[in-house]
Parts: sequence; C-alpha cells; structure tokens
Amino acid sequence: MLKGTINADTFRDSIDAVAALVTECRMHFSEQEVWIRSVDTANVAMVILTLQREAFNTYEATPGELGLDITKMKNIFTMMGKASEVSLDYPDGANKIEVRFEGYHYAITLLDTSTIKKDPNSPGIELPGVVTVSGSDLYNTIKSAAVVSDKMWLGINPDKKVFYIIAEGDSDHIEREFSADEMISCNYSQARSLFSIDYLKDMGKVMAHASEVTIHLGTDHPVKFSFDIAGGKGHVEYLLAPRIEAD
Amino acid sequence: MLKGTINADTFRDSIDAVAALVTECRMHFSEQEVWIRSVDTANVAMVILTLQREAFNTYEATPGELGLDITKMKNIFTMMGKASEVSLDYPDGANKIEVRFEGYHYAITLLDTSTIKKDPNSPGIELPGVVTVSGSDLYNTIKSAAVVSDKMWLGINPDKKVFYIIAEGDSDHIEREFSADEMISCNYSQARSLFSIDYLKDMGKVMAHASEVTIHLGTDHPVKFSFDIAGGKGHVEYLLAPRIEAD
Amino acid sequence: MLKGTINADTFRDSIDAVAALVTECRMHFSEQEVWIRSVDTANVAMVILTLQREAFNTYEATPGELGLDITKMKNIFTMMGKASEVSLDYPDGANKIEVRFEGYHYAITLLDTSTIKKDPNSPGIELPGVVTVSGSDLYNTIKSAAVVSDKMWLGINPDKKVFYIIAEGDSDHIEREFSADEMISCNYSQARSLFSIDYLKDMGKVMAHASEVTIHLGTDHPVKFSFDIAGGKGHVEYLLAPRIEAD
Repeated sequence: MLKGTINADTFRDSIDAVAALVTECRMHFSEQEVWIRSVDTANVAMVILTLQREAFNTYEATPGELGLDITKMKNIFTMMGKASEVSLDYPDGANKIEVRFEGYHYAITLLDTSTIKKDPNSPGIELPGVVTVSGSDLYNTIKSAAVVSDKMWLGINPDKKVFYIIAEGDSDHIEREFSADEMISCNYSQARSLFSIDYLKDMGKVMAHASEVTIHLGTDHPVKFSFDIAGGKGHVEYLLAPRIEAD
Repeated sequence: MLKGTINADTFRDSIDAVAALVTECRMHFSEQEVWIRSVDTANVAMVILTLQREAFNTYEATPGELGLDITKMKNIFTMMGKASEVSLDYPDGANKIEVRFEGYHYAITLLDTSTIKKDPNSPGIELPGVVTVSGSDLYNTIKSAAVVSDKMWLGINPDKKVFYIIAEGDSDHIEREFSADEMISCNYSQARSLFSIDYLKDMGKVMAHASEVTIHLGTDHPVKFSFDIAGGKGHVEYLLAPRIEAD
Repeated sequence: MLKGTINADTFRDSIDAVAALVTECRMHFSEQEVWIRSVDTANVAMVILTLQREAFNTYEATPGELGLDITKMKNIFTMMGKASEVSLDYPDGANKIEVRFEGYHYAITLLDTSTIKKDPNSPGIELPGVVTVSGSDLYNTIKSAAVVSDKMWLGINPDKKVFYIIAEGDSDHIEREFSADEMISCNYSQARSLFSIDYLKDMGKVMAHASEVTIHLGTDHPVKFSFDIAGGKGHVEYLLAPRIEAD
C-alpha cells in the first residue's frame, strides 16, 4: 500500500530521471522510502532513484512494489499544467494507481511486475576520480561533443589540474577542459574512460537541472553520476559502462 | 457589396473560429451584420459566426454573399505582423476580395458559392444543462482526456454539484470534475453525452482564448458551445453531434 | 597565417551571411581584412563578405586563404552558448583551424581550397535605383510574397514615389508599397526586375537582423542588397540575377 502527496516538481524530476533510460520499471516502497533501480534494455546504463518519505508532503506505506509504465506517467506532465501537488494512491493488491491533481482523477493500470526486466544488482566498483560540476555545464559539453563523434572521453588530468572531455571525429576534434574555478570540487585523481554519447545525452538532459553533479571516474571503468532532487530528500545515480576503444 | 475595416484581432478570431471546422465557406452580409454558418464535411459539427456591424471600425454593405477559401484567409495572418487593422473591399459582382493592411494590397480570388457545401439549418434542439467555464480550463481538460481515449463524456451531476468530463481508455481512466468555485455558473441540470475528442480539440483550441464559454448539454444529445468575440459584438456557436457508445 | 579573436555575435552574423548561399567557401585574409566572395551552385546568387581587422578584438595575419566547411562553422553556434568571444588560430600551412571559446578547444579540418568552386568576379553593373529600408520590413514582405508565388517583382515607381514588391499567383495577387515614411531613403529612379523568391527568402532571413539594407535595382537587371555587420566594421553584399518573365 502506498498513499502520498508530492510536489509536482519532485514528481516530474523523479519520472524524468528514470525515463532517460527505461520505459517501464518496478517501483519499490517501504515505510521509509520509495526506490527504483533499473537497467536499460542493452544492459549498458543503470538508474537508481531514491525518494525518502520526507520528499513527500504526506506519506504512508507498507512494503511492496508496483509496475510503472513510464510513458503514461509522463503523460501526466501534459495534464498537470500549473498544479503544484500530485496525490498518489495505490491500495494493497490493486492493479491501478490513482493519481489526483487539481480536479483531475487519473486511474492508470499498472504493469504486471513479473513481466518487467529484473532489477540489477548494484555494482560494487571503486572509482578513484571524483569531480563535481554544474549539471548544465556538463550537459552543454556533452551536446558539443556530440557534434563531432558518437563517443567521448571523460578524464581527470592531475598534472594540468583539469577535468576534461574529449571527442574525436573522423576529421575534427573537440576538447573541453574544466579548470579549478569552473568546478565545484575535484580530487585530481588520474582517470580516463570512453563512453557512448547517446547515453550521456539522455542522462545529461536530466542532469542539466541539477546545480551539482558528482562524477566518479576510473580508467577504462564505468562512470557514476550522482545528484540530488527534492531539495536533497531524493537522490539519483546513473551508472554507465565504458566503451572499448577500437584501434 | 461589402466594404469595411476591422481590428486585426477580431479578423483573426473570426477566421480561426471557422477554420476549426471547414476549409471553405459562404460568408453572408447585410446592412446589419456578417454571418457564416457551416457544417464540416462529415456533417458532425457546425459553426455559426456572427459579427455585428459594430464589430467593424467602418462598415458598409448591401445584402449578398461570397465564397471564402479559409486557408488563404489564414495566410493573411502570416503577413499581418503587427498590423492593427485590416480593410476588406468586395465590390458587387467581383470575383475577388481586396484585403489591405499596412502597405499591403492582397487580392484574393473568391470561390464560386455554388460549389460550396450548402449552409446547414440551425437545429432547434432543447438542451437542459447549462454551464459556463473559462475557455482555457475547458481546452486543458480536453487535451488531458485525449491522452487516454478518442472520445469523452461531458456531463452535469446535480447531486455532486459538478460539471464533469470523463474519458475511458482501454486500461486507463481520466475524470475531471469542476466544482462550483471552478465554474462561472451552472444550472445543475442532469446531463451526460459522449463526444469525439478530435472535434473537441479543434474547437477547444479556439475556445481557449475565450474568458467564458457557455456549454449547453443534454443526455445523449448534441452539445452547444457559445462564446463572444470582438468584445461582445461578435459571437460564435459550435454544435457537435453526440457519439453512440459502443458496448 | 591568421590569428584573432572576434565577438561571438560578429562571428555568428558573418557565418550566417555566407551560409545563406553556400555550404563551403574560400576565406581570404590579409594584414588589413578578411573576405569571402562566393557564388551559389546554380550561379544565380553571390555573397561578398568583408571584415576589416577592426571587426576583430585582436588580429594578426599574413596574406593567405583557407577552405571553410560552413556547416561545421555553424555547429560552433550550438556549442558557444553564452560565450562572448571566439578565438581563431590558423598557422601557416596547417590543415586545421583551431577555434577556442570558454574552455572549449575545437580543431576543425579545413577543406582543400583547390576543390572549392572558383571565386566569382565582381560584376561591374550599374543599377540606377537605390532604396534603403529596414531589414525586417524587407524580410516580412518577402515572406508574404512567398504565400502566392515563387517569384516577385522589386521596383521603384518614381510617379507614385514608392518602392514596391509585387507577387502574382495563379489566382491571387499581393502588392506591398513602401511610401516615403516607410523608407530610410530612396532616389526614386525607375526600376523593375523579377526575382526568385527562394533566394530572396534565404538572404532575407539574414538581412532581417540589419537595421538598414540598401537595395540597388535596375530594369530586368540583377539586384544588389548591401548592409553592415560588426557595427560597420564588416559589410555584406548579396547579388541576385533576375528571372526572365515567362509569358
């Protein structure tokens, strides 16, 4: 059973974060929090969303899970208009979730959770490089890199004291270095891995709204992006597997 | 013969109101007013537009009619820019209407009125339910209903004291209730009919600009929407036939 | 060798002016200025762009030329965001130009100038009619004419004291007269030529940003549009061949 009200913005940010990677997912809830952990169909990228009960204006739940059609959840955005709050109501064992806002009552049929891709395990990887930048700076750089290539390097150069992004096209080359005064923080630990720009663009569009995104990097290892939503009462993590450089 | 000048906004609102349903129409004029009464190609929806001579800045006419290509009239919008007034000149027996605004002179060939669908009769139906809401609220609700279905119920529930819109999709369900404080007025007379959302969306886009739209409803009867343009010196009515519920 | 910094707006205006007609071009530079003179693939329209060294914030050059892929230059716009300055660096004999702005370093491979269409000669034609209007008025009129036809007359009528644009469609006719108070200046010298609207629209989109565009016109002769960029330290000229009226 889940019954709560949530700010329209938090609702939107949460759905958008998941929608960047999957079109359906399993949503778990307990007395303390709501969480989603999903991997994209190609098993390349993972999203972990957590909303503490404090991210809701009112919250009541007994442990359970339900199957969300993300596309239908996004339809709600169109309807919400200037509504400031959304209420969610999922009675035990129901096959619908009732969504209410400003005179609207929207009953959405849930997905059978047994038909949804299994939740991934959280990978226990150590990533030495840690850098924090503004989400919009990060997204702008990803979009620029997309102009010349479909993959890009993310790296930290401890000697030059920079976090960098490099994209190499067939004939052109783009490099963006973030110097100390353009970063919120950086541990200047050597790192360099190659990633698919398609995934980064989808994630970047969401991260663009975060004032701070922390990036965990290794060498030829996955990257982890993490940022807060709901004023710190919610949290999103993206994990993306590296690409192998074809020589 | 028709010769007059009209505010650009009134001109635009009038053409848009008709363009929602038809691409060509017969425009009638007398010493007192201009009017258009047209039915869409499927005979499902009707528009009745009336502009009193007071809706014009200057007006001179002898009774007559002309055949308008609505698409060409809409082209004028693109050209008008910030022009505040449009002048129309149709000499007796001419096959063109001369449209002038801010240095432009646009001569548009008229359609032969004998080739245009006959004007419909005004249906003399009694519709007991009467409710007035803001045009933008109405349009937003229609757009929301379109998310789950291609048809929707419009109704008044005298017991709950609400005007409501319900759309039932294959798996989802949307309901929007307007309570007393969300309506401008309502006679709380029982009514409930089913309509095609495609038509309602086209009409709704126009009605969204009206501060007040009055809706006349019955049970399994047509709906009539009526609203003012030109500061009350012009008037638009839409009539839409109900759909039969397939069980 | 060319090395300079330029305001982002001037860079954008310059590239846009050339992009209206060609997708690649030869860029020449000397100690005093940068210039491009290109003709479109159909040999119907020519653009001449000149940027004095004063149009740059810093400028250093030895005479030379390089081959630009205009599409790649336009990609830079997407990346520039709110960057206010762009730096260009082309070392002697290099096959790349290095573009830098706000932490970005973009190395673009140049085109082999021997593969680019030869620069046209500047035609030494005398055009008696001269009229200056606002660029946005000019563009709006071109867009309006496009509604009824794919070609339009540009002319000056000394008797009526107007600059005019006329487009004749199969059934409709648009005429726009600029009277004295709508022009910045006019020499009221008889002129009238017919032009393709496709070209005029592409040029017009660029000219729309110029507060003053001077038009040189003859009778059944080309038209020349000329306007400043970079606060008068840069200049653009478009030449367009007339169309022959098919009777």
